[in-house]
Amino acid sequence: MDAGSIPTQASILLFSTVRVPRLVSTINRQIILRARPAGEPKLSDFDLEEGVVTAPSEQEVLCRSLYLSLDPYMRGRMNAAKSYASPVELGAVMEGGVVGEVLESRSESFRVGDIVMGYGGWQEYFTLDEKALRKVDPDLAPVSTSLGVLGMPGVTAYVGLANIGRPQPGETLVVAAASGAVGSVVGQIAKIHGAKAVGIAGSDEKCRYVVDELGFDACINHRDVNFAQELKAACPNGIDVYFENVGGAVFKAVLPLLNEFARIPVCGVISSYNDTALPEGQDPTSLILRSALVKRLTIKGFLVFDFEDQGPEALDALGAWMREGKLKFKEHVVDGLENAPQAFIGLLKGENFGKLIVRITPG
Amino acid sequence: MDAGSIPTQASILLFSTVRVPRLVSTINRQIILRARPAGEPKLSDFDLEEGVVTAPSEQEVLCRSLYLSLDPYMRGRMNAAKSYASPVELGAVMEGGVVGEVLESRSESFRVGDIVMGYGGWQEYFTLDEKALRKVDPDLAPVSTSLGVLGMPGVTAYVGLANIGRPQPGETLVVAAASGAVGSVVGQIAKIHGAKAVGIAGSDEKCRYVVDELGFDACINHRDVNFAQELKAACPNGIDVYFENVGGAVFKAVLPLLNEFARIPVCGVISSYNDTALPEGQDPTSLILRSALVKRLTIKGFLVFDFEDQGPEALDALGAWMREGKLKFKEHVVDGLENAPQAFIGLLKGENFGKLIVRITPG
Repeated sequence: MDAGSIPTQASILLFSTVRVPRLVSTINRQIILRARPAGEPKLSDFDLEEGVVTAPSEQEVLCRSLYLSLDPYMRGRMNAAKSYASPVELGAVMEGGVVGEVLESRSESFRVGDIVMGYGGWQEYFTLDEKALRKVDPDLAPVSTSLGVLGMPGVTAYVGLANIGRPQPGETLVVAAASGAVGSVVGQIAKIHGAKAVGIAGSDEKCRYVVDELGFDACINHRDVNFAQELKAACPNGIDVYFENVGGAVFKAVLPLLNEFARIPVCGVISSYNDTALPEGQDPTSLILRSALVKRLTIKGFLVFDFEDQGPEALDALGAWMREGKLKFKEHVVDGLENAPQAFIGLLKGENFGKLIVRITPG
Repeated sequence: MDAGSIPTQASILLFSTVRVPRLVSTINRQIILRARPAGEPKLSDFDLEEGVVTAPSEQEVLCRSLYLSLDPYMRGRMNAAKSYASPVELGAVMEGGVVGEVLESRSESFRVGDIVMGYGGWQEYFTLDEKALRKVDPDLAPVSTSLGVLGMPGVTAYVGLANIGRPQPGETLVVAAASGAVGSVVGQIAKIHGAKAVGIAGSDEKCRYVVDELGFDACINHRDVNFAQELKAACPNGIDVYFENVGGAVFKAVLPLLNEFARIPVCGVISSYNDTALPEGQDPTSLILRSALVKRLTIKGFLVFDFEDQGPEALDALGAWMREGKLKFKEHVVDGLENAPQAFIGLLKGENFGKLIVRITPG
């Protein structure tokens, strides 16, 4: 790092008073990762610290955080093991998508007051290169939706279905975490394509919402004792697309119901994110492989980044469906950055109802 | 069935003496399925019976069996459960591909003396519609190869790689049962495409053959105590294509070595065909799904019949490679229809060395 890019309290104060009247503090409260969770994350794995606001260098933009997105993938970032992305370092600010307001811009693409989305992290202020920011249109929908239905989760649902799931008219699609950020969009897109959408969720209230508000054909509570039988009854023609968000018992209930040539986009396995060891029991590996063979299944993992070039197309389609009233969403808003760790811990247990976001008001 | 198609000893004798001089018997020895195996098949699950030779109706062809193919998929046909194909009925002749010589033809496409391949079953004579037969060119290669490298197993290898595995130059492909009918072709095609081929087989002798004769880059004996470590050492750049014939311990050793965007055509799971229950132990479902996600794996089951329209292209390519000396094969020949059950039982335990076929001489 060259000396010119090192932020100092002095430089912040200078531009904050002179050029950025809305910067309300030079203190940047941040949630940092203090310890790598063993199993379920605990509050003590996080710390609330006071960092500094980083002045923007050439082509960079300084933003005030408005909404922080909490998403299951973040659990993977807390582990030491390299996954598709590097882990968050101990002592570093937790990663996350943020909607922010531009306070100071050294980019020609962004002006003070613009609303933007970027991976700003769990903090009150963030500074990113212009290429890492996307402008958010506040007239299209509430700006927080750029973290959900009109953001990464919505695009994830879109590209997973467009490239792998490909629901056809008359087919049956099943998605778990159906009231969540991705699942809710998956089922609604399936309906738009003329498929039958069957959701799985963790409470009767969520199920009612999925059917009554989102328009799914059915929704089963996976906590029901007769869950597997209820799922079977809801899918009399079998399952053609299973959009995998969850794994575990849901996957096992779905497997025998899959039709020949069924597609399984694997988007998440939230039921196992806190596991520290494989569960004991029967080993169904051969059953999975034989099912794949006999039914000619396609099981295919994907990340939204694999289809980055389809992002604009996806956002166009999602935005159009929203304007046409075909795409509804629900947000679960938690107030205050300091409450992000507890909200995230709850997310992994399904305690949220809708896309989980944290509203941030700089302290 | 109309009366005209019911064969009688009299009609057989009539055309056998007058029009089919090479029919040496009116008795058609057959292996029938007597009992559905519980686990590993036993000799008592089969019976050798004397049936009749069936006279051909219009468009049908009567053949004398020369070679019977024994293949792992047949184990599935012995179970009562419907799979991708219906089970063999108790008391019915076991299904199987056969190379035969035409004895009597009521088809304009086949003449007496032609060599043909069709699913004639485990019997000395078979009668099939002309559309169920394929002519075999005895000048291209030994006619028995139409059951192996130039037949269903070879085409299986070809279409599994062409459509799913897609080995690229410099990539690493792993295939188990590497000295077998499918695996041997898989590795050789990978080499033709410029990929590195690593085989897995069940004896040091088989491994030597796979490397020295078939030209694989390496071959690991899965019975070695250090099998997993040896496999890892043989794949320093990870695994890009795993052609799944086996499942079980081999799959588990491969999983951690798979690279991002690896492809797994699932062609067979022979290690579990005799299982009557899932094994006890750790349940790796979440590991499999998380690997699929994080590595963006494609796990895709297929049957050769799914790509039926690619059969001619596959046979052309395989035949050309054979003529060019790029495609070698090994046959394990067992003499006598009566020995087919024992040979099949051994096939499921890896006792064969090369494509297993039964040479049939009508008794």
